[in-house]
Amino acid sequence: MRAGVYDSGVGGLTVVKSLLEYKLFDEIIYFGDTARVPYGVKDKNTIIRYSLEAVEFFKNFDIDIMITACNSVSAYAIDELKANAPFKVSGVIEPGVLALKNKIPNKDAKILILGTNATINSGKYERLLKEHGYKNIESLSPSLFVPIVEEGLFSGKVLKTVMEHYFDGVSQPDAIILGCTHFPLISRQIHKFFPKAILIHSGEAVVEFLEDEFGITETHLNTELKLFASENPDKLKEVANEWLKN
Amino acid sequence: MRAGVYDSGVGGLTVVKSLLEYKLFDEIIYFGDTARVPYGVKDKNTIIRYSLEAVEFFKNFDIDIMITACNSVSAYAIDELKANAPFKVSGVIEPGVLALKNKIPNKDAKILILGTNATINSGKYERLLKEHGYKNIESLSPSLFVPIVEEGLFSGKVLKTVMEHYFDGVSQPDAIILGCTHFPLISRQIHKFFPKAILIHSGEAVVEFLEDEFGITETHLNTELKLFASENPDKLKEVANEWLKN
Repeated sequence: MRAGVYDSGVGGLTVVKSLLEYKLFDEIIYFGDTARVPYGVKDKNTIIRYSLEAVEFFKNFDIDIMITACNSVSAYAIDELKANAPFKVSGVIEPGVLALKNKIPNKDAKILILGTNATINSGKYERLLKEHGYKNIESLSPSLFVPIVEEGLFSGKVLKTVMEHYFDGVSQPDAIILGCTHFPLISRQIHKFFPKAILIHSGEAVVEFLEDEFGITETHLNTELKLFASENPDKLKEVANEWLKN
Repeated sequence: MRAGVYDSGVGGLTVVKSLLEYKLFDEIIYFGDTARVPYGVKDKNTIIRYSLEAVEFFKNFDIDIMITACNSVSAYAIDELKANAPFKVSGVIEPGVLALKNKIPNKDAKILILGTNATINSGKYERLLKEHGYKNIESLSPSLFVPIVEEGLFSGKVLKTVMEHYFDGVSQPDAIILGCTHFPLISRQIHKFFPKAILIHSGEAVVEFLEDEFGITETHLNTELKLFASENPDKLKEVANEWLKN
């Protein structure tokens, strides 16, 4: 089985990491739109247009399913992708909410959503959580987290100060949705601030979703990973070597 | 006289501010390529392509001179702009170096260049400074400054911690080139770290350059400013209201 993983940049590799861990595919084609990253500050129509271009890209590879690791794409373009792609499509928002539901049955639990401006402004996580009965939801867009991760500052004083800036005054949540591909890379530091919270990671959520929704469970001995980027593919390969190592 | 000011995003408004202050034009057409910001992480060919598209845009306005406020454009595309534009063209790098030369005649002075990755990697400031005889040059790319300014954190603990991260260990310079349109907005905080340094600001440098190079000195009672953006023009107008007020 062959999957196409689509992201605005390098961040989607955190989802690839989970797919590799659970050995769900024998081939993964990764496309990072690094020439036009970040999507999180772009508007809806632009994000839809870019996403449909990614469908065209994946048509070259005879994939079985396209997984959009990018939350901004999942927030704004998932319906258009499903309507236009000749293969199955999975986002990360619905998987994230379902994974949370499995872990936190109590509908009074406090849920904190962390995402980019585009994802938070779309209101998609919030709407879906409410449909599932959750009432106590807070949304936050810590815009500096992405550039800090891109700068490789996964811990230390800069990250700590920036977290204090965004998190001071936020009451302890029961669960946190890491609604951006970059956030799993600083999940341990987020957990230090909110030690009681369960963290929902898109990669693990997608693995569960692929099994429940599409019956994709088979495990393969090896997954071949092919990396493509709209700009600077060497940087993508470098980051993959760094992030995907065990 | 009519000027076109080109930038990758909203940052070029810091240059507009100087042009307004010195009343050099009766009309300024500003184009911010907000759909594709930031340029500072893109490669040379992409930056050249985008810049030539901006020339096409300004052809609609019968401008006398195009000023590229963006340092990344000035670093990579200035020759292509000059070769292809039917109007005069000014960047910010040559003006910055000439302004520094006027202020710091001593060639042994220590010069610190602050810029995006693209600007620093181009080596253009460094090369030009060396051509003018300066020997003691340090270059630094404090990548988090741009997103911090975009987040509106012009002072406070986050900015201070990030400055310590980049500046600790950097010896006191005699002059600092603010080689990115965003940096003038945090120049007071930069000055606190390096109190003896003279700061070179692209906007003021361009005003000097326009006079010396093109003889543009006339002052107009009013400058009409027209703002265009490739995405989210309302955001650009909001930022203009905030940054350009006195």
